[in-house]
Amino acid sequence: MMRAGVVGHSGYSGAEVVKLLRRHPRVEPVLVDHRADGAGVPWSPQALVENGIAVVFLATPAEVSIELAPQALQHGVKVIDLSGAFRLRTAENYQRWYGAAHGRADLLAEAAYGLPEFCRERVKGARLVANPGCYPTAANLALKPLVEAGVIDRAAGIVCDAKSGVSGAGKQPTAKTHFSEVTENFSAYSVLHHRHVPEVLLTSALEEGEFSFTAQLLPVHRGILETRPLDAEAVVEIYRRRYAGEPFVRVYGEGAVPNLHAVAYTNYCDLGVKADAASRRVVVVAAIDNLVKGAAGQAIQNMNLVLGFPETEGLE
Amino acid sequence: MMRAGVVGHSGYSGAEVVKLLRRHPRVEPVLVDHRADGAGVPWSPQALVENGIAVVFLATPAEVSIELAPQALQHGVKVIDLSGAFRLRTAENYQRWYGAAHGRADLLAEAAYGLPEFCRERVKGARLVANPGCYPTAANLALKPLVEAGVIDRAAGIVCDAKSGVSGAGKQPTAKTHFSEVTENFSAYSVLHHRHVPEVLLTSALEEGEFSFTAQLLPVHRGILETRPLDAEAVVEIYRRRYAGEPFVRVYGEGAVPNLHAVAYTNYCDLGVKADAASRRVVVVAAIDNLVKGAAGQAIQNMNLVLGFPETEGLE
Amino acid sequence: MMRAGVVGHSGYSGAEVVKLLRRHPRVEPVLVDHRADGAGVPWSPQALVENGIAVVFLATPAEVSIELAPQALQHGVKVIDLSGAFRLRTAENYQRWYGAAHGRADLLAEAAYGLPEFCRERVKGARLVANPGCYPTAANLALKPLVEAGVIDRAAGIVCDAKSGVSGAGKQPTAKTHFSEVTENFSAYSVLHHRHVPEVLLTSALEEGEFSFTAQLLPVHRGILETRPLDAEAVVEIYRRRYAGEPFVRVYGEGAVPNLHAVAYTNYCDLGVKADAASRRVVVVAAIDNLVKGAAGQAIQNMNLVLGFPETEGLE
Amino acid sequence: MMRAGVVGHSGYSGAEVVKLLRRHPRVEPVLVDHRADGAGVPWSPQALVENGIAVVFLATPAEVSIELAPQALQHGVKVIDLSGAFRLRTAENYQRWYGAAHGRADLLAEAAYGLPEFCRERVKGARLVANPGCYPTAANLALKPLVEAGVIDRAAGIVCDAKSGVSGAGKQPTAKTHFSEVTENFSAYSVLHHRHVPEVLLTSALEEGEFSFTAQLLPVHRGILETRPLDAEAVVEIYRRRYAGEPFVRVYGEGAVPNLHAVAYTNYCDLGVKADAASRRVVVVAAIDNLVKGAAGQAIQNMNLVLGFPETEGLE
Repeated sequence: MMRAGVVGHSGYSGAEVVKLLRRHPRVEPVLVDHRADGAGVPWSPQALVENGIAVVFLATPAEVSIELAPQALQHGVKVIDLSGAFRLRTAENYQRWYGAAHGRADLLAEAAYGLPEFCRERVKGARLVANPGCYPTAANLALKPLVEAGVIDRAAGIVCDAKSGVSGAGKQPTAKTHFSEVTENFSAYSVLHHRHVPEVLLTSALEEGEFSFTAQLLPVHRGILETRPLDAEAVVEIYRRRYAGEPFVRVYGEGAVPNLHAVAYTNYCDLGVKADAASRRVVVVAAIDNLVKGAAGQAIQNMNLVLGFPETEGLE
Repeated sequence: MMRAGVVGHSGYSGAEVVKLLRRHPRVEPVLVDHRADGAGVPWSPQALVENGIAVVFLATPAEVSIELAPQALQHGVKVIDLSGAFRLRTAENYQRWYGAAHGRADLLAEAAYGLPEFCRERVKGARLVANPGCYPTAANLALKPLVEAGVIDRAAGIVCDAKSGVSGAGKQPTAKTHFSEVTENFSAYSVLHHRHVPEVLLTSALEEGEFSFTAQLLPVHRGILETRPLDAEAVVEIYRRRYAGEPFVRVYGEGAVPNLHAVAYTNYCDLGVKADAASRRVVVVAAIDNLVKGAAGQAIQNMNLVLGFPETEGLE
Repeated sequence: MMRAGVVGHSGYSGAEVVKLLRRHPRVEPVLVDHRADGAGVPWSPQALVENGIAVVFLATPAEVSIELAPQALQHGVKVIDLSGAFRLRTAENYQRWYGAAHGRADLLAEAAYGLPEFCRERVKGARLVANPGCYPTAANLALKPLVEAGVIDRAAGIVCDAKSGVSGAGKQPTAKTHFSEVTENFSAYSVLHHRHVPEVLLTSALEEGEFSFTAQLLPVHRGILETRPLDAEAVVEIYRRRYAGEPFVRVYGEGAVPNLHAVAYTNYCDLGVKADAASRRVVVVAAIDNLVKGAAGQAIQNMNLVLGFPETEGLE
Repeated sequence: MMRAGVVGHSGYSGAEVVKLLRRHPRVEPVLVDHRADGAGVPWSPQALVENGIAVVFLATPAEVSIELAPQALQHGVKVIDLSGAFRLRTAENYQRWYGAAHGRADLLAEAAYGLPEFCRERVKGARLVANPGCYPTAANLALKPLVEAGVIDRAAGIVCDAKSGVSGAGKQPTAKTHFSEVTENFSAYSVLHHRHVPEVLLTSALEEGEFSFTAQLLPVHRGILETRPLDAEAVVEIYRRRYAGEPFVRVYGEGAVPNLHAVAYTNYCDLGVKADAASRRVVVVAAIDNLVKGAAGQAIQNMNLVLGFPETEGLE
């Protein structure tokens, strides 16, 4: 068995990484603590090496990941980072969307964006993988094939209306995640200015004015559903061709759309398409579990690629 | 006290009408039963007259409303219909969206569409009021001022992403409304083909290709939240001017958006706007309680107009 | 209009007091801030007097209430305290259940316990009212008539299994109240050692070994339901006689039991009884809204008594 | 691979059996349809034999199981029945609790009650296994060791307050399971007269007057939590000894109690104990997933015993 370190294992995403690794046939988790109060191995690059850790998952805030990732890399330990620390390509862009300086422009340039369906080869050889955000995972899987096929009227704009379960907001108790504030409620947030927007622009090669994004908080624990209307045709066929052979993308027949129950606790991204001939408009519905394909499951998928294992191991 | 009959009082909307009337200072409810099994006054036009009923609420399926409304009108009893029976203007349009023939084209032409903020004068003199659907209430209140102001790029299209609580689907138990199917779930339905679409086209004077509508089922009991991105500016100001003096429309300051808790159990429609200078795009968020402003509350508002009472009575 | 101060008005109970006072025909709320950061009147006994405040609601933690109550009383302002600060009668008992010293044994002895159905006369003349806890309100209303009637086999013990909505745990965000921890979950807490136990022992005149209490957290926002099996007969009749004329206690016919929807957003305590002839055992189900009859509504009821107003004003 | 038929595979319990069998290393499911409208193998004893089915799961109503079980047995196919059809031992008792005649008293006498922790040896040799009800599974696992140890004051009575997720009520849409009736609600049902009571009396060897049972409906999808206070000591130690080596019963340290999240989607029954020295009273909290250990998982466990496989296969 190989050994993988997990930092931030008490949060929702980190705990899900640990859970998935415990079922993995070739890799076992080692709990690593960045702060003093944990029960795991205290963080130090030496401790990683001494514990035989080949790859480390960082399920930590972006600023912590920026601090820890270089230390691990310097000692030859590969890094799969679940935060937003290395998803953008330049320090300028990071400053704009995260409101903070980024001292390691070299790593921003080096990091492989971990959306295997589109970046598989880069991930395989990477030392540092930036695991995608939950919203962009669903958005890019739905959009990029259509952008590449040239079927979108980009001048008219792409509208993305996304809803996430509460675990996407993290485990830290806040007024926004208090049960009484969430139950029987539904609310939009970060309207038009969500940090996940640039990941979609970069990956699907869109200009800023072409993509309008609204995030919304669902009164459920896990799951993301995104709808977006497009001017396009033959979308199902484009998806079918593009995702033939992809183990974790399922394309529904025309007219059928997925819901959260269809993907909860799995690494699947389900895509459904409904078209209207009169208006030549198409609605695409994408569903993922924000903690699996939107975080920990995709991180395992990337780990399998980095370590040269079959991509689906531990995820079926 | 005047007396108002309520048919369909065991459903969610009808029960809400009864509840609101019980608090009304000038009108009291009389339960009327269309079917044999109820405990109220059995339906007949004579019974309405004998019980001194001046106005009757029909919270019944469309086909039942088409049958009952003419009987009441013929005996001089005014009708406020909560179904879709009289919301469209022609039998052809009704056939297309409801999939059934409509034998009373004369009443379709006569009925006043009961959205007081835009049709107040027609409602005042009406014998027959078609109470709007829940989705179109929020959609038209958000859209019509902007269409009238000419600030929408209609060629680019208007996208409306609407989510309703489960009570909008009615009280009849179905597989779709089973608790286990709804909890921790979220799903889109009637994508692009919902029956409520033509109410928006008619009221906001839009062409079919200009309005794209997706309905979605929220795991909450009541409430509707609709988001729609527009190419526009000065939207808040347009709303402020248009809704000055309106008792049941509240416009938020730029950047603030409503959620369901803000409107639950009230007759308010709350509107919030968030703009993005770069893309010249605007997102409008509208929130109502689907059982109050989206059904029973608006029906009371219409009754007040029809009977010449202050419009807000029994609704504050 | 009289004026009532409300301290702690941003918490769930305090906000509910403000909401109820805004509908009250004779009393209007004044927001008072104990901490520096609020937008209301800053706390000082002088400020209460200058603002013409006749009575002040303390919806604050017990230790804050112990500090503020004497200041108000000293300046002739009556106090209705929603915390546990003055519900027990001696400093020794307070030390045992709340784990802290209580410097004002004189006020413990003076305070009237605000359960109007049993302590109405004492409340009328009181300067300081200790508003009951949510669990004991339901428990005492169900138990005390049966204890008084002598129909309980006290040696066999009374078992009380109580479940509360999340708002009972307060508005402070904690790991226990995070949506993701509560949704689709159910858990027992403070098993056999809940702070509310001594309120039941004192009010219903029970010995400690005779009453077994388990508190449980329901995945709902508001509402309390308590079940307790008893060896008794003719319980419905006892309730009917005891609560004849009580405006806020409703007794169901034998075999029917209340649920949370029946009492949500009201000041009612509903009681239902189911008996089993063979075992001579009786289950009583009591339901209240923990924020209304369990907190703010009962506080208004007590205020009405203290100020000499009709007991039900503002609560119907 | 062996083949197991599943009748009633579209219900919640039957679907869960199919899901678990699909992961089982030695047995694969065959969908069998009792009614005409399904897509699986139509039911007939011959069809079972021709399809090489060694064992059949009946996730059907009791009256259907009484009809189908004898047909399967006659053709040498073993039966694991998830309904209440064969859980009681005599036709008289069945008549009393299920309100219907039972024409196969011979099979009632023959059936093995499938609670492996107490009936393992009988199950191993059985042709017909009566899979326990969900409530009695948790109740008997918590009670029987204490009854056997003689630590319960049976005269004082055992009180069992049980709460189940909505899936325990089945997939058939009813007014009781409508989302709007369940969300933000909590209700007791079948108070003192639930059909599951005699399973506890029989298995834990109690008299009727000694056991008081209240069932309650939780607003969650799956999970059962039962609390019961007892007069006893050393309960944890009794559990530890009794369940040493049991793969699916976990005993918590004194003072810790389980919640639904701890057992959801697993075959575990978790037991926690909290004692009070003063009153010599003990509260036991038992938690199971009503669809796994309370239905389908336990059915697989019984199948493993019947077929001579390791008891935990397919369940870890």
